[in-house]
Amino acid sequence: MAKKVLIVYAHESPASFNAAAKDAAVAALTAQGCTVEVSDLYAMKFKAAATTEDITGGVKDAENFCYAKEIKLASEEGRLADDIKKEQEKLKEADLVIFQFPMYWSSVPAIMKGWMDRVLGFAYAQEKRYSEGIFKDKKAMLSFTTDCPESVYSETGINGDINVTLWPLQNGILNYCGFKVFAPQIFWDPATGSPESRSSMLEGWRTRLQNLYGEAPVYFAPLDYFDKEKGFLLKPEVKQKYAKAGRICSTC
Amino acid sequence: MAKKVLIVYAHESPASFNAAAKDAAVAALTAQGCTVEVSDLYAMKFKAAATTEDITGGVKDAENFCYAKEIKLASEEGRLADDIKKEQEKLKEADLVIFQFPMYWSSVPAIMKGWMDRVLGFAYAQEKRYSEGIFKDKKAMLSFTTDCPESVYSETGINGDINVTLWPLQNGILNYCGFKVFAPQIFWDPATGSPESRSSMLEGWRTRLQNLYGEAPVYFAPLDYFDKEKGFLLKPEVKQKYAKAGRICSTC
Repeated sequence: MAKKVLIVYAHESPASFNAAAKDAAVAALTAQGCTVEVSDLYAMKFKAAATTEDITGGVKDAENFCYAKEIKLASEEGRLADDIKKEQEKLKEADLVIFQFPMYWSSVPAIMKGWMDRVLGFAYAQEKRYSEGIFKDKKAMLSFTTDCPESVYSETGINGDINVTLWPLQNGILNYCGFKVFAPQIFWDPATGSPESRSSMLEGWRTRLQNLYGEAPVYFAPLDYFDKEKGFLLKPEVKQKYAKAGRICSTC
Repeated sequence: MAKKVLIVYAHESPASFNAAAKDAAVAALTAQGCTVEVSDLYAMKFKAAATTEDITGGVKDAENFCYAKEIKLASEEGRLADDIKKEQEKLKEADLVIFQFPMYWSSVPAIMKGWMDRVLGFAYAQEKRYSEGIFKDKKAMLSFTTDCPESVYSETGINGDINVTLWPLQNGILNYCGFKVFAPQIFWDPATGSPESRSSMLEGWRTRLQNLYGEAPVYFAPLDYFDKEKGFLLKPEVKQKYAKAGRICSTC
């Protein structure tokens, strides 16, 4: 099991189900001998907007400010704002990062997107991405609550397959950075369930955490399936192999 | 053509391509007789995090704070923070909303997600969603820049089909709220192009805006395709029809 875990947590209320899920994870992981660090974003009043203020000592090109370029340069030169540095220190130490949040509008709450924009900004590197990504020795997972039952996020449900909704987060951010991504922990509509069903959900979460590292991560096509000389398109031989297996596109 | 347009804009630099795209839209739409309002989120220092402070006069259930519930109630009772109220007034007036932003981590920058979380929060209503959504008489569209060429976001590209990446934004937010969604305006990697290619992109944008309302919106399955008595799953007869047409799921 992982020795060091970072939980990035985004809920204002200590009495929320998200707080209970976070506390359950802290207890279960600590009991296994892990060191658990929590970044409680609302309590920290974490700055969400990615701005020039994130770079100390002035930006290189104020007129044509490009956050992605400037943040990477500032990171190399040790000129990042203190709150970003602190989070990056925690991230550096962590073997596993768990994002605990209530789903807002099919994604993470803005304050958590701000953590991703600002803290992970330096890891956005076309030359080191996906299976060659900066965090390829780390694991990550999404753990979240919904306000709807599982059916609406099934393949024929009104919101579409949950894996499609999670694609930008799980592939576009976590997999892009190199993290091995564990299947998401989804708490379906805890608010409308009974206290017993909520307890049962938390018990399932604790049980899952006991053997999390025994799980196979979500599969994503590795970097070398794509031809970097030809616009990073799936190599014809891989495409043929996938077509034979009944898969139709790189996102399926 | 629309009479009133709201551009929600998220870039710090007035010299950026995003600023140029926003300015081009303002000029092209104004020339057609439209009234254009711009919400310049960074200039406004728009608060991104959705918090209890968004509700004036105290929240109903501080211990079990649920933003979605509280924001809807506060909206009905006129107890929203002033900055949210102001944005909602602009939104109420608008026939068309354009979101102009640089893509950050496969989505909108956190400051824009904050606008969506906070300003659109009251429109998250299971009883009034999708084709019955609150903004069903309005149009919306995403207009954004990438730092990569189109190939990487093609069906067999390394980032997967751009429509999958945009699904949570276009379906999960805009379509959910009822907006008719125009196809996204995507400026592929303007930063690495020549000044001529950037001018040409902007010219294409101006030209498109001249006949935007002549375009058919993006297709999404209507609400009545789903059975509300049975977990909002696609009705068997619709599923059969789609299967015959070669579609495999509601998100395809």
